[in-house]
Amino acid sequence: MPPAPPPPPPARDLSALFDPRSVAIVGASADPAKWGYAVARQALRGSGRRPVHLVNRRGGEILGQPVATSLREIGGGVDLAVLSVPAGGFAQAVDEALDCGARALVAITAGLGELGPQGEAIQQAAVARVRAAGAVLVGPNCLGLADNSTELHLSSDPFRDGGVALLSQSGNVGLELQLRLARSGHGFSRFVSLGNQADLTLVELVRDCARHPETKVVAVYAEDFRDGRAFAAAAAEAASLGKPVVLLAPGGSDAAMRSALSHTGSMTSPTAVIDAVCRDSGIHRVHSLREFATVLGALHAPSRGGPLRRVAVLTDGGGHGTIAADTLDAAGFTVPALEPATRKAVTAALWENSPADNPVDLAGLGEQDPLCYARGVGALLAADEIDAVLLTGYFGGYSASAEGLGDAGDAERAAARALAGTAAASGKPVVVQSMYPDAPSCRILAEAGLPVHAATEDAVRALLALAAASAGGGAAPAPLPAPAAPVTEAGYLADRALLAAAGLPFTAALAATDTAQVADAAAQLRPPYVLKATGLLHKSDAGGVALGLLDRDALLAAHAAMDERLHAPAYSVEEMAELRDGVELIVGARWDPRFGPVLLVGLGGVLTEVLRDVVFALAPVTPDAARALLDRLRGAPLLHGVRGRSGVDLDAAARAIATVSELAAAHPEIGEIEVNPLLLTPTGALALDARVVLTTPAQPHS
Amino acid sequence: MPPAPPPPPPARDLSALFDPRSVAIVGASADPAKWGYAVARQALRGSGRRPVHLVNRRGGEILGQPVATSLREIGGGVDLAVLSVPAGGFAQAVDEALDCGARALVAITAGLGELGPQGEAIQQAAVARVRAAGAVLVGPNCLGLADNSTELHLSSDPFRDGGVALLSQSGNVGLELQLRLARSGHGFSRFVSLGNQADLTLVELVRDCARHPETKVVAVYAEDFRDGRAFAAAAAEAASLGKPVVLLAPGGSDAAMRSALSHTGSMTSPTAVIDAVCRDSGIHRVHSLREFATVLGALHAPSRGGPLRRVAVLTDGGGHGTIAADTLDAAGFTVPALEPATRKAVTAALWENSPADNPVDLAGLGEQDPLCYARGVGALLAADEIDAVLLTGYFGGYSASAEGLGDAGDAERAAARALAGTAAASGKPVVVQSMYPDAPSCRILAEAGLPVHAATEDAVRALLALAAASAGGGAAPAPLPAPAAPVTEAGYLADRALLAAAGLPFTAALAATDTAQVADAAAQLRPPYVLKATGLLHKSDAGGVALGLLDRDALLAAHAAMDERLHAPAYSVEEMAELRDGVELIVGARWDPRFGPVLLVGLGGVLTEVLRDVVFALAPVTPDAARALLDRLRGAPLLHGVRGRSGVDLDAAARAIATVSELAAAHPEIGEIEVNPLLLTPTGALALDARVVLTTPAQPHS
Repeated sequence: MPPAPPPPPPARDLSALFDPRSVAIVGASADPAKWGYAVARQALRGSGRRPVHLVNRRGGEILGQPVATSLREIGGGVDLAVLSVPAGGFAQAVDEALDCGARALVAITAGLGELGPQGEAIQQAAVARVRAAGAVLVGPNCLGLADNSTELHLSSDPFRDGGVALLSQSGNVGLELQLRLARSGHGFSRFVSLGNQADLTLVELVRDCARHPETKVVAVYAEDFRDGRAFAAAAAEAASLGKPVVLLAPGGSDAAMRSALSHTGSMTSPTAVIDAVCRDSGIHRVHSLREFATVLGALHAPSRGGPLRRVAVLTDGGGHGTIAADTLDAAGFTVPALEPATRKAVTAALWENSPADNPVDLAGLGEQDPLCYARGVGALLAADEIDAVLLTGYFGGYSASAEGLGDAGDAERAAARALAGTAAASGKPVVVQSMYPDAPSCRILAEAGLPVHAATEDAVRALLALAAASAGGGAAPAPLPAPAAPVTEAGYLADRALLAAAGLPFTAALAATDTAQVADAAAQLRPPYVLKATGLLHKSDAGGVALGLLDRDALLAAHAAMDERLHAPAYSVEEMAELRDGVELIVGARWDPRFGPVLLVGLGGVLTEVLRDVVFALAPVTPDAARALLDRLRGAPLLHGVRGRSGVDLDAAARAIATVSELAAAHPEIGEIEVNPLLLTPTGALALDARVVLTTPAQPHS
Repeated sequence: MPPAPPPPPPARDLSALFDPRSVAIVGASADPAKWGYAVARQALRGSGRRPVHLVNRRGGEILGQPVATSLREIGGGVDLAVLSVPAGGFAQAVDEALDCGARALVAITAGLGELGPQGEAIQQAAVARVRAAGAVLVGPNCLGLADNSTELHLSSDPFRDGGVALLSQSGNVGLELQLRLARSGHGFSRFVSLGNQADLTLVELVRDCARHPETKVVAVYAEDFRDGRAFAAAAAEAASLGKPVVLLAPGGSDAAMRSALSHTGSMTSPTAVIDAVCRDSGIHRVHSLREFATVLGALHAPSRGGPLRRVAVLTDGGGHGTIAADTLDAAGFTVPALEPATRKAVTAALWENSPADNPVDLAGLGEQDPLCYARGVGALLAADEIDAVLLTGYFGGYSASAEGLGDAGDAERAAARALAGTAAASGKPVVVQSMYPDAPSCRILAEAGLPVHAATEDAVRALLALAAASAGGGAAPAPLPAPAAPVTEAGYLADRALLAAAGLPFTAALAATDTAQVADAAAQLRPPYVLKATGLLHKSDAGGVALGLLDRDALLAAHAAMDERLHAPAYSVEEMAELRDGVELIVGARWDPRFGPVLLVGLGGVLTEVLRDVVFALAPVTPDAARALLDRLRGAPLLHGVRGRSGVDLDAAARAIATVSELAAAHPEIGEIEVNPLLLTPTGALALDARVVLTTPAQPHS
């Protein structure tokens, strides 16, 4: 069992940010083309709940409201101040706001980044003053904030009310998401434009939204996680509170990194690492705005728990059923054949013409009797062998057309109501794909919480999200151990010693600097031998490794030849492991700027480069977690034994992996550590090589 | 070079099907709920171009038209007859139509399949009579046909005019595709519901549509290809005529096969085989209706040829740019950094605030000056290092809102026109993603042939289609050789002899049935030896293979032990190959019911099962094609040599693969053939095992 994670640092009170007693907009504008006008207009919508003050040093009137020339002029206290001022006036505006008693600041001010180190210093000083005053600051370089549950509208565009709390580093992303969610009747509980995260970061905001009653799901668009490990912990906690986190985090491609750098000066982590963090922490990762909206819509339904794997398809056209079955299969669902009792129930609910197999085809009954859609779904939901139902095809078409306003449309709307009732009673998920997703019948379904999708792949993506949610959330990353005494020596022998001291098993080896010591080593070790030149950067590439030296003479000859060629400062004489029945792994770790120590495990040897069969996890990992990691390799069957080969010692493998991960986690000064290969045999695990790279590279030793 | 494919069989004249001189609807109905009413109504739309006769044995009047009680009653000739009659009256209706001179029949009649062998016999007899009369028949069990270029409307729903010829085994698939294509302003040149393909198959229809001037792209929804090899040839030919074929062919999942079987009684080929056929024949394969519509829309633009790999992204919001860059990268495009001259041109076209890197961010200029979108795209199109431009984000928003009807909307519409002009002048593809895809500005783009997509991934999918089209089409599959004298003997020794006779190199081996013969073999062959029991079904699993027998004594001992255990009818004594520096392949072929002989090549040994790194092609293949196939393996670097390992003899490998493929193609009676492993070394290729399965299994011999 991993040790329990430490308690989160005491959460700051964000009530002044999301439900302030009063608001001031510094930089309000009378020019309808300006942001300061749009936000003033939005903010005033909440003036029934709290005083909204407009501030502009030119005074006058905006939208019929008097404008103060400064915060001080307002006279009373200001609980939240929006600062839309030029970069040059930012520091002063922060001071004024704090002087007026502001407990929350929303800093729109952009351009501090362009001032270089000077801008960074201004920002840091402001944050220090904000924290000293017990206040919080969003931004700078943010686009505003909104909380529909408290009528707080501090952004240029209104956000439709709903259950999604959106924390975003992009304004247009929020805009498109709003357009997409509106189509399925969804909207936002909160919106926070993250900006530079100089004070308040994603982490605190996720934690707060997880406790916000009106929030059902937390949406994050992040190019920079800042403390990615703390974000993962906050997200895992949110999921455990029933508020799943959905993440759109671009990055990975060179161009995306270039774009992100030019955008908010962020640091992007490799996408495979983000994937691993999401999987382990129960975060739903998406890769496009369309997928974002699909998953957010799906996760509004509370998770019912238990596996969601076996899906029944009901269709009114064979083509749609076949396509849906294929799409489900490709996504990892099964579309099982129905049990005889279910087939009987389906035929009874439909008619003799319907192939009562999965997919179930209405075969023309839909147009005669639209209520059959509800009966068919009901018969399938009642089956023990079915976890969820996907309805696909024409449903909606009878109420979509002008003709559909007649009997067929009425019947279809009744079917929609019946279907919603049946689904709610069963508790199993029902998702719908319709070629008429905006039809009145489909709107009835959507309002009842049954998502209706235009595309089959979206319906299946929604099911995947529900399956992930019902499989249970992830766990917060294991905490980092206290840093150990820093490593200062690098080089093959030092690296090997470091790992061996941590408990990693190595082949027997002796260091030797001259012929006599090599001969001594031969006497003490069992042949065949391996000879490695040490103190060279790439010993393999330089020809500094000789394998399979059968006896003392071969070893001495290899040493003489190698020494003449390389003049290496030292050599390592080692016993050679029997590779024949083994499987080679690569086990490494890297200190990621956002996530800290990240463990890599993969098939080793030549296969590492060729197949790139590698998996990641945040270090440290327990031996149990290491075993689970091994099972995620494509090549995992090799470890368990295939075609008469015996399996390897998985416990020893897991212990070795955990050891490397713990060492990496305890040494922030180790930029990279790699054991390649770690030889796994039926009876154990043995490190055959090791390499450590310090972030402040030391000279190679010994 | 592969031999040239044989000329296609003489194409039948389908002019009576797509542009008949007169039409009769047998089974027209006065009941608006019936198909016979809907089709009559549609058909009558073309009555200005040709006489349209309605036939129903009850006579009377339908839609104000007189109804004949039989075809004969019409009096004049009938060029095309639609037969919507019960299965029981089908044979007679066919005869009557032929008697009246019909050259084309569209058979709606369903239910023949339900009559079992009797229905099949009726269908076959009808087809024979149709062919004898020089006519053609679509269906039976089809939903109709339409040709907008000749005002021929013989389906229940109208099809919007456009450039897509749709050949479909599903009616609802056509319906949804129509709804999707309409959104981007596209429509159909022709629609054919394939039905049972008893006479006219996909193949003839693809060939005819490829020569139809109004058709720009051929869309196929097929659950059953019938002659898949001929379909591939027809599609390759269509592509060469500038009419790319886009294929939605579900299958692969068990459930999809179940669904397809219950739907039209078709036979589904494994999806990996379909993928291979599509790649080699230049067919665009899609997996959903959404992707279908996206690709069909993209392929309306004529292909400009040349590679399409390097894409520039222009965005008005950093988030959209980053997401687009990631999506492009994941799809295999590059989003290159811009050359200094291009950066200068981009900055000149935009403003100093815009990060003139790729992605290029307008950074707020769009709302001040919408024409900058066109200037920015123009600057990027002019760059030598850029093959295509993806515009993503807000464009469309200024003309989408009510406010956008003012100046900003006007400016944006002007920008759309300028952008379309710039794109047309450059000849390079421009695709657009917009959060307002239906905005007036976006409609201007779409009408100018610049696809506008709601989702980034759709825009990238469109680019992928354009890239595939501009990379040039594929080639028709190599023709099958004339069948060789059938193989009648199966069993290890026979299989080995068959392959060796075809030219596949094997290790030296001698058959032996008793101890004396084993000893003889030992004397003639070089140790170490391999001993295999033959005449058993699974010799490996039964312990019927002994490897690495170092000398005569070891061989004799192994034989004695094996013979006592297995009592095999015979043994094979073989020289053992040196496996150490080799790479093992699996090379096999299978006779697919739709595509004929299909070749499989993969990494062999334990890796075959674990990694499933296999590729397919239609057999036979030339050695050149075999080499290209090897390069598509994930493990291809192993063959070329990695980390100091030498590469294998690729020429020998390619010859061996071609040999297996030719043998398979010449022997329809071989259901499966497999060489596993084929050992590749730096100096050659050597088959170490062989297995042949005859479709009428013979008894194992020798």
